[in-house]
Amino acid sequence: MAPDGHNGKVLRVDLSSRTTAEEQVPETIYRRYLGGGALSLYYLLKELKPGVDPLGLENVLIFATSAATGTPAFGFSRFTVAAKSPLTHSFGETEAGGWWGPELKFSGFDAIIIKGKANRPVYLSIQNGKAELREASHLWGQLARETQEKIREELGDKRIRIALIGPGGEKLVRFACVVNELKHVNGRTGMGAVMGAKNLKAIAVRGDERMALHDAERVREIVKTVSEKGKQPGSLMGPLHDIGTPRSVMLLNAAGILPTKNFRGGTFEKAEDISGETMKDTILVGRGACHGCPVRCKREVKIDEPFKVDPAYGGPEYETIGGLGALCGIGDLKAIAYANQLCQAYTIDTISTGTTIAFAMECFENGILTARDTGGIRLEFGNAEAMMKMVEMIAKREGFGDLLAEGVKTAAEKIGKGSEKYAMHVKGQPLPLHEPRGKTSLGLAYALSPTGADHIEAPHDPVFESEAGLKFIKSLGVIEPIPSLDLSHRKVRMFTYLQHLYNIFNSIGICNFTAYPWGPMSTNDLVDYVNAVTGWDTSLWEMMKVGERHSAMSRVFNIREGLTAKDDVLPNRFFEPLEGGPLNGKRLNIDEFQRALKTYYQMMGWDENGVPSRGKMEELELEWAIPFVSGGK
Amino acid sequence: MAPDGHNGKVLRVDLSSRTTAEEQVPETIYRRYLGGGALSLYYLLKELKPGVDPLGLENVLIFATSAATGTPAFGFSRFTVAAKSPLTHSFGETEAGGWWGPELKFSGFDAIIIKGKANRPVYLSIQNGKAELREASHLWGQLARETQEKIREELGDKRIRIALIGPGGEKLVRFACVVNELKHVNGRTGMGAVMGAKNLKAIAVRGDERMALHDAERVREIVKTVSEKGKQPGSLMGPLHDIGTPRSVMLLNAAGILPTKNFRGGTFEKAEDISGETMKDTILVGRGACHGCPVRCKREVKIDEPFKVDPAYGGPEYETIGGLGALCGIGDLKAIAYANQLCQAYTIDTISTGTTIAFAMECFENGILTARDTGGIRLEFGNAEAMMKMVEMIAKREGFGDLLAEGVKTAAEKIGKGSEKYAMHVKGQPLPLHEPRGKTSLGLAYALSPTGADHIEAPHDPVFESEAGLKFIKSLGVIEPIPSLDLSHRKVRMFTYLQHLYNIFNSIGICNFTAYPWGPMSTNDLVDYVNAVTGWDTSLWEMMKVGERHSAMSRVFNIREGLTAKDDVLPNRFFEPLEGGPLNGKRLNIDEFQRALKTYYQMMGWDENGVPSRGKMEELELEWAIPFVSGGK
Repeated sequence: MAPDGHNGKVLRVDLSSRTTAEEQVPETIYRRYLGGGALSLYYLLKELKPGVDPLGLENVLIFATSAATGTPAFGFSRFTVAAKSPLTHSFGETEAGGWWGPELKFSGFDAIIIKGKANRPVYLSIQNGKAELREASHLWGQLARETQEKIREELGDKRIRIALIGPGGEKLVRFACVVNELKHVNGRTGMGAVMGAKNLKAIAVRGDERMALHDAERVREIVKTVSEKGKQPGSLMGPLHDIGTPRSVMLLNAAGILPTKNFRGGTFEKAEDISGETMKDTILVGRGACHGCPVRCKREVKIDEPFKVDPAYGGPEYETIGGLGALCGIGDLKAIAYANQLCQAYTIDTISTGTTIAFAMECFENGILTARDTGGIRLEFGNAEAMMKMVEMIAKREGFGDLLAEGVKTAAEKIGKGSEKYAMHVKGQPLPLHEPRGKTSLGLAYALSPTGADHIEAPHDPVFESEAGLKFIKSLGVIEPIPSLDLSHRKVRMFTYLQHLYNIFNSIGICNFTAYPWGPMSTNDLVDYVNAVTGWDTSLWEMMKVGERHSAMSRVFNIREGLTAKDDVLPNRFFEPLEGGPLNGKRLNIDEFQRALKTYYQMMGWDENGVPSRGKMEELELEWAIPFVSGGK
Repeated sequence: MAPDGHNGKVLRVDLSSRTTAEEQVPETIYRRYLGGGALSLYYLLKELKPGVDPLGLENVLIFATSAATGTPAFGFSRFTVAAKSPLTHSFGETEAGGWWGPELKFSGFDAIIIKGKANRPVYLSIQNGKAELREASHLWGQLARETQEKIREELGDKRIRIALIGPGGEKLVRFACVVNELKHVNGRTGMGAVMGAKNLKAIAVRGDERMALHDAERVREIVKTVSEKGKQPGSLMGPLHDIGTPRSVMLLNAAGILPTKNFRGGTFEKAEDISGETMKDTILVGRGACHGCPVRCKREVKIDEPFKVDPAYGGPEYETIGGLGALCGIGDLKAIAYANQLCQAYTIDTISTGTTIAFAMECFENGILTARDTGGIRLEFGNAEAMMKMVEMIAKREGFGDLLAEGVKTAAEKIGKGSEKYAMHVKGQPLPLHEPRGKTSLGLAYALSPTGADHIEAPHDPVFESEAGLKFIKSLGVIEPIPSLDLSHRKVRMFTYLQHLYNIFNSIGICNFTAYPWGPMSTNDLVDYVNAVTGWDTSLWEMMKVGERHSAMSRVFNIREGLTAKDDVLPNRFFEPLEGGPLNGKRLNIDEFQRALKTYYQMMGWDENGVPSRGKMEELELEWAIPFVSGGK
């Protein structure tokens, strides 16, 4: 009998031999790693050789849900895709919501571990425990929507859930993403390119399995309590339904931290034009949800002129509007929505695409690039046409797009001429749309995330400036307010604890908008819920240690790949004054920042080179991974 | 208005000027330090100068309850007495149950901080918020019972609760204890001598204040649930009521870990004669309880011949029977009960007394001591008369007793002639009655406890050898069984986490027999309960960090006093073979043990010299204490 909350088994796929196999996984592994990011790291550290080409057949690609994914509470819809990243050449991990993760579990597996490379395109179908690799040569080159439709037709199941790549993944754009249901995206670290390199076009899942719940009544009670809290005044559930994540455009702009023109500024004169509110009043035609979620925060937009945008591809999130909009100086919401559709159809990451184009625009402005380089396109800030064209060229690796498809770091290295200073990335991963000069933990997150610049691990500092906001994290032991711009050990401590917490989220597969601090589910509710589902009697202590374990494992992964403390950096721009707006002139102090990094290492039990100590590894039950880090004393 | 669960204020007493003062304490201090041991450390580190004479006027003596002491759940009766120890010359901390702690809170204060020295004997009376220092010259020299009776008479309150010292404390026996209600004992580290040195005979408390409960209904629910769990089959509540802590005599003897003849052996041929079962069948006349507790684990014994033992002084606990019985080779329960009464009446620690006499007996056996040294007493293993006489001589500092009253470490140093190898102590604190060769975490606890050899911080390893026992600590993340004799990093990890947990117990003031692993209150129940009492939304994460904070603070205390990693040792005997019984020949491996200590330091975020790193101190919000440790990098 399957354990409560999950199937207790993973599917192994060897693309080279076109074989699949089931593997039982002990309960202790689920409890120690939960699922998602931490579970993926467990397998990657054990089974992926260091130093391999991320686009070669030796890379290992993992799709992982958790011991709670697909259970009744809303928010437990997320799953992880992980592998060595072709973008950062180090740890790659990215989460998406939607329906695919729960459906994978219903199909009979908690995770899929994929090795090797198919000699010609295939897709994987899993239906009620039966896994099959099927020909996909006829699907190669197809956009996301066409691919999904054809697979559904072939399999005779209109509701089968499909995670797939479009031409961007096939052409190995290094920031290609994986898309499920055309609008839920595992966006970062180029996992779509790993699929492409393996000739794996898609994974279709469907099943009737439902997870046993250890205490179904208690599950119901918690769901009810959390739902009620979500309806209370002050809850973000309402605004998230109404305006979606694009509500951040106006909020961040007002605070002076809406990244604009490649992070030079934090206010954008056309913010209102590209805001969630404007979207609602103009092109919004529907709202989409993830499995079990009443919020429906996803946008669905429709445009007929001057170009067509199909609501099946959803609509732009805040990050997309920020990256393809404000960051490129573009105030044309329709152009952004169109570019968003291109990204979904070709499956390339909107964040990386936006940051990479903004880089090129700043190079263009400074004469480092000219129309001769770009095939005649005038890549100027504010030029929506140029932006849309560039997105397509990247997705297709056409002309100058082929260079940008290598990622902003590699592109800058190849362009040279001082362009590196405009390449806004950490560890090769282009920056998301959040401004460290206005919230210092974000700076720490960018520098310290194992996947490079990543906003998912960063708390939104302004929340914790007040007693009112602090209530969300008092259970972590952060009981006194901490200013947004503080960079003392207090901020490092808050960041460290919240990084553990976000690692829990990315492992148990819960939506950031469901749990504290954004959602109504407190950390203690979350623990209760996991216990009600699994019967474990776990605690926030044990779960925070999973979070810490995630950080230690990903650190080990990156050390194995040759990264050092020298890679824990921020683009120099953040040590220079922010231009304009309420925070005009603000900059991070480099000495303070570097001291904060050292403090973080010590808080983590890592040495001055950022290597986890032997004892810390043992405390985290990672003794098996000690041999991977020569520095582990 | 007072915050939920506590008064929010401490009483400050300056004995030199005979003044008292109230002090409001911010809620954040209670949340960060909880009470008891951690709260005491907070004040001691801030207000006690390092290097002072523990028996001088500069020592600071603290009595501390917690934010939950005296609330309805059973087990929340305990309080801490702390100061610099005259026995170890480092951190002194000791807990007791009974009724005094709750009554202190009802009197209006959560803690008392005592400084200076009275120029002649005084006692402190606190009644309904009014504190008064009263003359005690007429009480000086009186035994515990007489002292209690006279104070009650003077204050006209037969039910006033009194913590006091007898002549042992007055005469500065370095392991003098503090006794409340004649039978509840703050036994270790010589806090009774600190009272004696300050000319403070007693503290009498009484009041009508009752603590507000944040969620009284939830408190009731938890109490009900925990009580019901305590009645289930397999619960220790029944056996603890029936046989009390002396039930350990037969259990440990059967396992070969009942310390016998100064820790040479682990089985005692007369174990049954001194067992809890025999006590029940012979001299037991009643069972006593602590505040709110239905278990009534305390013994009350009565003997008329050949000497009188008064049930008002309770009866011997397991530790007393072990120390004054098996450790001295004595199988005479009446003699042990009489010696126990002497210890209570004179207020000296039964554990230290037993271990110190056993040391002298082994010296006697080896000719290092002779009847000439002992004033004619034949201090032989098994000589009950000699043991009883020696207890009295120590308590009165008479003859050879005066030397032993200095503690086993100092006595051995003065005796010389190789006697040191028979002195079973760590950091000067005589060993309690538990055998490290049969349970390795105990060895770690002895070596690493800031108060020297202390059994309260040590888990009972055999419990965690099985899945059944493991359920008690799975919430800590220890999810796979660990053998009793294992000394790998797995054991160190379990010990470290349990040390945090026991530090919570000693700070929140909960009885070890109430909470997991011995009692029915799980760690998650405990967190729920503290939340229901205080309204904090705390978590096991936050509370475990209080436990870790306690360890870091006490480490800093000891570093300030000159202790180093070299003081983290075990008596050499434990690296030699155990004699007889099921574990005949077992010894600890010294290399393994020393590696385990290093592993512990790393797990704690301490350097190789056992000094907490700067970052770890900051993580634990102890940045204010960093200047105290020069090694803090």
